[in-house]
Amino acid sequence: MVSVTSFPRETRLIGLDWGSSSLRAMLIDGEGQVLLSRQSTQGASTLHGGPAAFSAALDELIGDWHATGQPLLACGMVGSQHGWREVPYAACPADARALATGALAVDWRGRSVRLLPGLRCDTEAGPPDVMRGEETQVLGALELLPELAARSCIVMPGTHSKWAQVVDGTVRSFATQMTGELYAVMRQHSVLGRLMLADPQPDLLAFAEGVRAARDHGELGLPHQLFAVRTLGLTGRLAHEALPDYLSGLLIGHELRAGLQARDASAPLVLLGEPALCQRYVKALDLFGVGEVQVLPNTAAAGLWRIAQVARGVL
Amino acid sequence: MVSVTSFPRETRLIGLDWGSSSLRAMLIDGEGQVLLSRQSTQGASTLHGGPAAFSAALDELIGDWHATGQPLLACGMVGSQHGWREVPYAACPADARALATGALAVDWRGRSVRLLPGLRCDTEAGPPDVMRGEETQVLGALELLPELAARSCIVMPGTHSKWAQVVDGTVRSFATQMTGELYAVMRQHSVLGRLMLADPQPDLLAFAEGVRAARDHGELGLPHQLFAVRTLGLTGRLAHEALPDYLSGLLIGHELRAGLQARDASAPLVLLGEPALCQRYVKALDLFGVGEVQVLPNTAAAGLWRIAQVARGVL
Repeated sequence: MVSVTSFPRETRLIGLDWGSSSLRAMLIDGEGQVLLSRQSTQGASTLHGGPAAFSAALDELIGDWHATGQPLLACGMVGSQHGWREVPYAACPADARALATGALAVDWRGRSVRLLPGLRCDTEAGPPDVMRGEETQVLGALELLPELAARSCIVMPGTHSKWAQVVDGTVRSFATQMTGELYAVMRQHSVLGRLMLADPQPDLLAFAEGVRAARDHGELGLPHQLFAVRTLGLTGRLAHEALPDYLSGLLIGHELRAGLQARDASAPLVLLGEPALCQRYVKALDLFGVGEVQVLPNTAAAGLWRIAQVARGVL
Repeated sequence: MVSVTSFPRETRLIGLDWGSSSLRAMLIDGEGQVLLSRQSTQGASTLHGGPAAFSAALDELIGDWHATGQPLLACGMVGSQHGWREVPYAACPADARALATGALAVDWRGRSVRLLPGLRCDTEAGPPDVMRGEETQVLGALELLPELAARSCIVMPGTHSKWAQVVDGTVRSFATQMTGELYAVMRQHSVLGRLMLADPQPDLLAFAEGVRAARDHGELGLPHQLFAVRTLGLTGRLAHEALPDYLSGLLIGHELRAGLQARDASAPLVLLGEPALCQRYVKALDLFGVGEVQVLPNTAAAGLWRIAQVARGVL
């Protein structure tokens, strides 16, 4: 048995935010607040031993929580093809109820862990888009800021940024932008990186210049404007220290150009994620004339709580 | 002395097409035709010993041509900052005369090798663009197809594709697109490559689908459309074997989208370069409704000859 001191008795849910590269376990109370959290680097893409490996990862991180009897709910890549068990994507439009009913259970030494589905968005413009984990964050934002449920555009910047359009508490559609990965790959593996220093000071003026290049001349195309990162350095128009931030601004600017065009301009815009990265987006959005932006940190806990509440009714 | 059999007496110029990764030396006759050519992998970016290393590379490849007394003219990265000697860029608009007068000489064991300048294009839309070597190919195209001199758009597909606008025998402006490098970097270093096979059969249907995605939905943005390469594979909409060609089509489609918008639509379009790659562009251009396209292989020799003729008058 676990003692009351190490396991808060207000706990109503054990939430697992289980992505590719990390696992975060949270004790969540009856208000959706996190009482305690633990983190490990045993992300879904690091575990190669099938279900036993996932079960062992839980043993290692929260073995002492097993006996408490609280329900377990997980979101993220743990439900992917290479996760604990593949949970088919729910289709947009989808709300908390659709996610709750799409969950599938796995066994953790005699206890049930419910894995949430990701979301799939089929579009007329061709290929479907997918997310796993971010859908839970979107619902978390609606839990924390209920006024967003009627209509909002929720942006989660990152390696693969997600732009979700919410109407009536439902994710109507979303789109992924590979902005963060493009930045990393171009910086580390393309000719653009050759002029860049390993770890320069941030240069917000260069960042803004990159955003403006995308805003004002984006029709020249990203494959062309990327080359400018090189010529700006070669011709001394930008110091080599400034080039990474110019590249960052250019890519985020192209993301905004496409993302803002697709959203309902009357919908409030919310950023979810790592605060320093969100601040870059706030600055870039301001240059695009979008001044009113709310910023929240990772909202997975609130999303898991919201879905768990709905799940009681449907499961 | 070199014997007549190994050195054609019709030779009027020794042309050097000296890029980053290779050196090609050509004996050129009074009609601009190549009589004999030799190639080595001693490109400018492979030589780190300063002028002596460049001189030695010539010794190795064409030491037996040294005594013939024919003029030597070189284009390409050999004139860059890290080349034999830096030759400042000539500025657009520029014709053969401007390139000839911008050349600077280096010494090869008592003989003069003239290095041509690259071209620089300053634009209102921000950063300058640059080329080194392709300007000579453009002039070569005008030498081979004189009807292009009045007005043409000359496209050189590759790692860094160049689109040059020609009016009255003059390169008015040009733009670089990093299409080939984006393809290589995304395939080798991004998440997109994970679903791809090492060496699949070409899939022209998938290529066309990628071109159409860029043509019809390019406003969704390249950072978004790139992610579709992954979802098409994940959801089985495209076979994994087909993904490299879809990516190729998507990127070339975005290049055409931007390039065709910038050109004078009444100017004939010409492709210069490696035949198989040019055929991809012909197919993509056809999907964009541009059916009449001429294709030429590398035209550096004809360009060097054209500039050498002009140089007699101005040097």
